[in-house]
Amino acid sequence: MNFLEERIIKDGVVKAGNVLKVDSFLNHQMDIALMDQIGEEFYRRFSDKKVTKVLTIESSGIAIACSVARCFGVPVVFAKKSKSINIDGDMYVAEVESFTHKNRNNVIVSKKFLNSDDHVLIVDDFLANGCALQGLISITESSGATVEGLGIVIEKGFQIGGTIIRNLGYKLESLAIVESMDCENGTLTFREQ
Amino acid sequence: MNFLEERIIKDGVVKAGNVLKVDSFLNHQMDIALMDQIGEEFYRRFSDKKVTKVLTIESSGIAIACSVARCFGVPVVFAKKSKSINIDGDMYVAEVESFTHKNRNNVIVSKKFLNSDDHVLIVDDFLANGCALQGLISITESSGATVEGLGIVIEKGFQIGGTIIRNLGYKLESLAIVESMDCENGTLTFREQ
Repeated sequence: MNFLEERIIKDGVVKAGNVLKVDSFLNHQMDIALMDQIGEEFYRRFSDKKVTKVLTIESSGIAIACSVARCFGVPVVFAKKSKSINIDGDMYVAEVESFTHKNRNNVIVSKKFLNSDDHVLIVDDFLANGCALQGLISITESSGATVEGLGIVIEKGFQIGGTIIRNLGYKLESLAIVESMDCENGTLTFREQ
Repeated sequence: MNFLEERIIKDGVVKAGNVLKVDSFLNHQMDIALMDQIGEEFYRRFSDKKVTKVLTIESSGIAIACSVARCFGVPVVFAKKSKSINIDGDMYVAEVESFTHKNRNNVIVSKKFLNSDDHVLIVDDFLANGCALQGLISITESSGATVEGLGIVIEKGFQIGGTIIRNLGYKLESLAIVESMDCENGTLTFREQ
């Protein structure tokens, strides 16, 4: 097991409905030393790539993005979720339908901050059905920038998102891939990587 | 002028309606070296305080909070905005009315992550009318924790928030206080500190 899998076993909580609560260290309370370890690990895995921007989506991707971006010495851009339909022309917009929540959200990034010279590493905390990531890929491609890869902290390997992104040909690195969860006895298994 | 005021002069854009756009370096695209400089400056200004948690609110406070928390060696907790009225009993809730947007939002923090042993430094990117900060103070006080101080990157000195927080007796440190803005010629003045 790597450092993240060990931490999930120690502090993660398996709940009914395939919910994995990691809010004590990842996405509500945040362990900064762990964030930095995650940042360094993504840096190691994408060190062969030319990265000019780290792109994420608010809110829980931001801390991870900052730790990765510090290693690469590049800025973070975070996409905003917006229900507004009055988006002006200065924004890249992706309309993202959530499989889980059965609603639609716009994901927006100002055109000032992504262009065809950019090489983008996309990061987020969770990957399940991949709706948010698909929006971030769509926005990056719209800008003419290159998607250099995608870094995910926890992938739910039993949901479709990871397969879709890999099938599309992108380099996707997930630090932990949860293969199955059992809420009855609070256990989970990771995919061997 | 300090490093932040210089950066605002260089890259901030004054817009009509007392809007100061700093989205190229602070709250949409983020300059990580600047975030770390901000974190170190807050650490210096609150170094006489015992801090056990850095508390902020999603989304644009998170990167700042991470940089400060790294200096103190403590976790970040970020409050979530929620429109939901079905908040379970495991959450501290503050109902916050926005003077600017004329709406109400719940600000929530899990009870697991703040308690009476905690000494909290609250940070955010902007302070105008202070609605968000009031919610964070309310939540901290509800938990029995101590508010050790509040660190703001940019305070709009011509709006009421800073006065309210200081009148309440809290130590509030703003790295830049904008005294006035002139959108006609794109200039602004800072309060001497």
